[in-house]
Amino acid sequence: MSLQQKLYGLLDAENGSRAAHRMRVLEIVLILVGIGAVAVGTMNDLVPAHHGLAATLTGIVATVFLVEYLVRLWVAPASPHISDALSPLVARWRWAVSAEGLIDLLAILPMAVILSGNAKLGADSSAAFVLLWVVKLATHAPGVSLIARVVSNERSALSAVAILFVIVLISGATLAYFVEEAAQPADFSSIPSALWWAIVTLTTTGYGDVVPKTGLGRMIGGVLMVSGIAVLALLAGILANGFAEEVKRREFVRIWELVAKVPFFADIGAIAISDIVVRLRSRNFPAGAVILRRGTPGDSMYFIVSGEVEVRIGARPVYLREGAFFGEMALLDRRPRAADVIAVTPCTTLVLDVADFYQIAGQQPALIQAIEAEAKRRQAANKATPSEGPK
Amino acid sequence: MSLQQKLYGLLDAENGSRAAHRMRVLEIVLILVGIGAVAVGTMNDLVPAHHGLAATLTGIVATVFLVEYLVRLWVAPASPHISDALSPLVARWRWAVSAEGLIDLLAILPMAVILSGNAKLGADSSAAFVLLWVVKLATHAPGVSLIARVVSNERSALSAVAILFVIVLISGATLAYFVEEAAQPADFSSIPSALWWAIVTLTTTGYGDVVPKTGLGRMIGGVLMVSGIAVLALLAGILANGFAEEVKRREFVRIWELVAKVPFFADIGAIAISDIVVRLRSRNFPAGAVILRRGTPGDSMYFIVSGEVEVRIGARPVYLREGAFFGEMALLDRRPRAADVIAVTPCTTLVLDVADFYQIAGQQPALIQAIEAEAKRRQAANKATPSEGPK
Amino acid sequence: MSLQQKLYGLLDAENGSRAAHRMRVLEIVLILVGIGAVAVGTMNDLVPAHHGLAATLTGIVATVFLVEYLVRLWVAPASPHISDALSPLVARWRWAVSAEGLIDLLAILPMAVILSGNAKLGADSSAAFVLLWVVKLATHAPGVSLIARVVSNERSALSAVAILFVIVLISGATLAYFVEEAAQPADFSSIPSALWWAIVTLTTTGYGDVVPKTGLGRMIGGVLMVSGIAVLALLAGILANGFAEEVKRREFVRIWELVAKVPFFADIGAIAISDIVVRLRSRNFPAGAVILRRGTPGDSMYFIVSGEVEVRIGARPVYLREGAFFGEMALLDRRPRAADVIAVTPCTTLVLDVADFYQIAGQQPALIQAIEAEAKRRQAANKATPSEGPK
Amino acid sequence: MSLQQKLYGLLDAENGSRAAHRMRVLEIVLILVGIGAVAVGTMNDLVPAHHGLAATLTGIVATVFLVEYLVRLWVAPASPHISDALSPLVARWRWAVSAEGLIDLLAILPMAVILSGNAKLGADSSAAFVLLWVVKLATHAPGVSLIARVVSNERSALSAVAILFVIVLISGATLAYFVEEAAQPADFSSIPSALWWAIVTLTTTGYGDVVPKTGLGRMIGGVLMVSGIAVLALLAGILANGFAEEVKRREFVRIWELVAKVPFFADIGAIAISDIVVRLRSRNFPAGAVILRRGTPGDSMYFIVSGEVEVRIGARPVYLREGAFFGEMALLDRRPRAADVIAVTPCTTLVLDVADFYQIAGQQPALIQAIEAEAKRRQAANKATPSEGPK
Repeated sequence: MSLQQKLYGLLDAENGSRAAHRMRVLEIVLILVGIGAVAVGTMNDLVPAHHGLAATLTGIVATVFLVEYLVRLWVAPASPHISDALSPLVARWRWAVSAEGLIDLLAILPMAVILSGNAKLGADSSAAFVLLWVVKLATHAPGVSLIARVVSNERSALSAVAILFVIVLISGATLAYFVEEAAQPADFSSIPSALWWAIVTLTTTGYGDVVPKTGLGRMIGGVLMVSGIAVLALLAGILANGFAEEVKRREFVRIWELVAKVPFFADIGAIAISDIVVRLRSRNFPAGAVILRRGTPGDSMYFIVSGEVEVRIGARPVYLREGAFFGEMALLDRRPRAADVIAVTPCTTLVLDVADFYQIAGQQPALIQAIEAEAKRRQAANKATPSEGPK
Repeated sequence: MSLQQKLYGLLDAENGSRAAHRMRVLEIVLILVGIGAVAVGTMNDLVPAHHGLAATLTGIVATVFLVEYLVRLWVAPASPHISDALSPLVARWRWAVSAEGLIDLLAILPMAVILSGNAKLGADSSAAFVLLWVVKLATHAPGVSLIARVVSNERSALSAVAILFVIVLISGATLAYFVEEAAQPADFSSIPSALWWAIVTLTTTGYGDVVPKTGLGRMIGGVLMVSGIAVLALLAGILANGFAEEVKRREFVRIWELVAKVPFFADIGAIAISDIVVRLRSRNFPAGAVILRRGTPGDSMYFIVSGEVEVRIGARPVYLREGAFFGEMALLDRRPRAADVIAVTPCTTLVLDVADFYQIAGQQPALIQAIEAEAKRRQAANKATPSEGPK
Repeated sequence: MSLQQKLYGLLDAENGSRAAHRMRVLEIVLILVGIGAVAVGTMNDLVPAHHGLAATLTGIVATVFLVEYLVRLWVAPASPHISDALSPLVARWRWAVSAEGLIDLLAILPMAVILSGNAKLGADSSAAFVLLWVVKLATHAPGVSLIARVVSNERSALSAVAILFVIVLISGATLAYFVEEAAQPADFSSIPSALWWAIVTLTTTGYGDVVPKTGLGRMIGGVLMVSGIAVLALLAGILANGFAEEVKRREFVRIWELVAKVPFFADIGAIAISDIVVRLRSRNFPAGAVILRRGTPGDSMYFIVSGEVEVRIGARPVYLREGAFFGEMALLDRRPRAADVIAVTPCTTLVLDVADFYQIAGQQPALIQAIEAEAKRRQAANKATPSEGPK
Repeated sequence: MSLQQKLYGLLDAENGSRAAHRMRVLEIVLILVGIGAVAVGTMNDLVPAHHGLAATLTGIVATVFLVEYLVRLWVAPASPHISDALSPLVARWRWAVSAEGLIDLLAILPMAVILSGNAKLGADSSAAFVLLWVVKLATHAPGVSLIARVVSNERSALSAVAILFVIVLISGATLAYFVEEAAQPADFSSIPSALWWAIVTLTTTGYGDVVPKTGLGRMIGGVLMVSGIAVLALLAGILANGFAEEVKRREFVRIWELVAKVPFFADIGAIAISDIVVRLRSRNFPAGAVILRRGTPGDSMYFIVSGEVEVRIGARPVYLREGAFFGEMALLDRRPRAADVIAVTPCTTLVLDVADFYQIAGQQPALIQAIEAEAKRRQAANKATPSEGPK
């Protein structure tokens, strides 16, 4: 793999590797530091030293973004998303004029202003670049695309709630305008003025800068507040359902890809796999983490996707690697854990809960039999070894 | 089809066609513009030119509504909802005295006031018509009926929460009245006065115009705030469940109707179809949209309900039309997408996720076999064609 | 049935009849009117006539409650909840000392104060009775028991959230006390004082009477606000799930009882019935309501539990009574409704959605065959009748 | 069992016994009393007697914590969580340097300050110890670990919402800074100042200390408020789903352990048990509680895990103990309850709802047959006994 391809992989938003993940976290931290530095730079009552520090930080972040932009431009030909029959130059141009390329270009603009050396201009206008960096943050943040998809899936329901919101808002503002104009000509002078009060009330923000004084106005206010709560509840209901569905869908694809890496599941047909995939969850452990603790109730078993674990049973620990599974004995015997299991290296595992284990057992008896056979083999091996600890 | 019937179809709220949908969006935009113009017209500190613009806009919107009213009256005999053995005159009368007809009639009243030429009266009273247009908005907005149905389905649970809300509200106000009256005789002079404070607190709006001063009063306030949060949470819970159920029900009917248009599903019995319908989602793509991208994980397949797509695989692209499906290879082989698929015309598709695909495969093996046969046929055809791109 | 038993039935909270339902609604309205009258009576700036009206209304409501108390006492022996081997006197005593009896007794206390003739005392102390009537409202309101059950079911999760709330509240108040005491010695003089600010902030009420001034204090405030939103979200999540489960459980019992009244389901075994019960919903229609409208999509069928409907198909309408079903043709043929169906008397129906219809068809083919046979019989009968309308 | 082991069991957070549960409740109450006493001690306008009382209470609570610390240190060797091949001294050292040990150590620090006799220092600095006790509260509170697990499971979705929150917050603050700085130079002097307004608005707290004055600023405010509601709704949706899943998972393990104690389920294989476990709920009754009431609808049956109940049917009551079941007749016959059932001792039961009963009946006919056989045996026994009460 060339350096270009390696760098591309590191910067690819869809790369699931540990290094790429760290790169993304670093990127987000950098953007937040940059935004913080620019924000602090707008404070007038700061000592000059702090102003200088903020300016330096802003400069560093902007420089890193410049380097990042150039690297991304250079590695663009390695992208499978850009049609592969293209010459490197055309590929780079395509990336440069893509949404991502333009946003990354805008994000290095503050650099130019800072380099211009005009301190006044730098302090004043660089504040505007906070917004550019926020946009960069939005495109690089994980999960924003998930939320965007949920909003898009539920757009018809959400637009219905939006229309309802507008209906309540306008009705409330208009009625309050008629009722309160006489008592408070300044705050309720027109429907647009009343709208400010209505939105502050409907969202239950309640600044208190405009407050109805008449009995009727207070009644309208009360109805608006309760409506606000109802709108919020509706919104929560819609988003809760949409979110649950989308997460389930993505999780399926993610687990599906992990399952493909476990040899144990290789022989099972695609239909049976589908039954199992919906029941598995993935869980990561750092090196040294205690995955299972002896004596605790046995509520799940684990399949190792990557990494190595140490099973502390008997005198000599057993080591398990990719493709192996553990924790199945407590499920088969309905007894507490008989061993500690510790992650030797960072581990990615697939977890199968006891309820799902038995439900799969009913549907795929062969799978459970394979697990039982392996468990018996291990117990025999364990007994053969002279052991001092409890079992 | 006569002009009358065509116009009726365009204005029919239940018509799912693209043109009728645009008509409904246009209607809502018009109402919002009209409301905005009237609202701006109530501002006193506006320059005369802006006042004139607002008045003109109001007039235009009112005129459009007048025309709309007359058209709707004319096309009423084409409605299947109005008993069809009637003479056109009786059918029009029936529509005119229906809820929809009366609301549309009220919505053109501002017209009359504006035509009266009395500027003062026009500016003052036309504000009142905002409310009439809000009612029109509510009847024409999509999704409002969905929310109304959810509220109606959950009315017993919602009324329980309403009673609970009233109980907490009245208890809080009465207790605060006893506790705070001595300290703040103006704001807590009676139970109705205390109710204003209680509702502002219970909805967590918190204007701050009335605030308890005594320790006991603050405790009552704290309990009210926490109760407010609990009531909101209960409401969200009820509406979330009700919404999910109603949406599922409507979605079933909608997908059912789309499935009926796909020849591929025609041979399957109604019982089997029911299994598939609950697993399909519909998705629309504008012309030119990239539906599938080569190299991304294959997590779903698509059935084309209407429109045409271009499959960019090999040297010569393949075109697929209504009734065809695509994206099934990635599901069958568990590999990334091998081709880009782009919408040539606006497309309506039915999407089947990988998890559902394999679950259907378990229940309806014949269906999956038909898909597999088609996939093999296509792969053979593709191989026969000399191709330059990767597969 | 004796008058005593009839009256008992009318007042029984678990009686599902229409008359008993109206009685309960009347009771709640009466309590609300009474509370309203007492509340208005506490206003000092009222004209004497209104004061008199409020006092009169309070007196009437209190008198009705007195009569109600005596009636409930008299009918107590008819209650199956009170052990039936008792003499009437003992049964009445048991009711009188039950929670319900004591609350109803307390609710007539205002009567005594009003009768004492002391106007000053009446106005002052009767306000306190609002609280007694609120308690009466809570015991008679439908659905309050449902909410109480949900809260009881979820008490361990709810208490966890409450502890979390207390932890955040106390931490926030203590930190703010240290940070803000120097800047605002009056508002943050002690931890209890700071607690007031903390609860107003954590519930996002935000009166604005106490506001942090220092940068650190504002940061603590920001964390409290965000925590408040998270606590609310957690609460909503817990209550949403608990509510959905409890409603499903109650609905099952309610539908179960309705299904027992439909002869069509009589022959089906209890296990099969259980499958069907979870899929049915009940729906009531007032006399004259249009249940089905010709031309609309056929998304459900109906079983009549009580009442009579008119099916307007062909020249002579068909009338259907308890135990009959309708709307099944659109489901079997996948076509729009062929007839209008109107409720002749108030009707209680069980609704079966199309998705559930086909799922039942897969599990209970005999049931669907019975429906199909009936549908064919009707179509034949319909054709035999000379008809003028469309089919 | 030695005193050391008994004490360990009593203090073990995972011990499900009644005594250990009471111990935990007592611990939480003690911490709350201690926090309350310290908090009151910070009030300056208190009479000296109250100050003295607060100081005494603080001292008592601190002393109890000291004793608790020593006891926990002493019983550490009995813990199965600390590797058992260790000498008692090493085991104690391990506990002392564990997170729990250090927190408990910090919680007794106030003791030292109070003992120093410096009243001024005691009053001032002991306030800081509130925070230490809050941490102790967090580690001992039940359910906090459940919430922590939910947050950990949903961390990717939650971090997406957090990023979204930050994006909206920073955008809103920056825009408001540009728009409002001219009109309100004091409140919007820099981006950090504007951030205070933005967070108060985005969380819909709305203190009202900073309020936008310009039209554009108010529009930004309105968007922030609505965004705040949407963020809250998203959060609620994520937490609701995560909570439901985690609770279901824990409930399965808990019910699983209870089922293992009921002999009736002993013969059933693990796969069948899994089907039943997901349908059972546990419910505790204090001695004397009425579990079933004659005449109410029969919607569930009960299995006794521990305790004894009295079935009041016929002349002589029947007593049932661990392993027995009751309430099955109403389910089998679809009739109201025929007997009152009262808890004689505190009871733990497993409840099976009617819907689940019939669904299990379809899957595990043998189980239901066993229940029916037992029911018939009991009815025969009941008839043989001369009875006076109704059946």
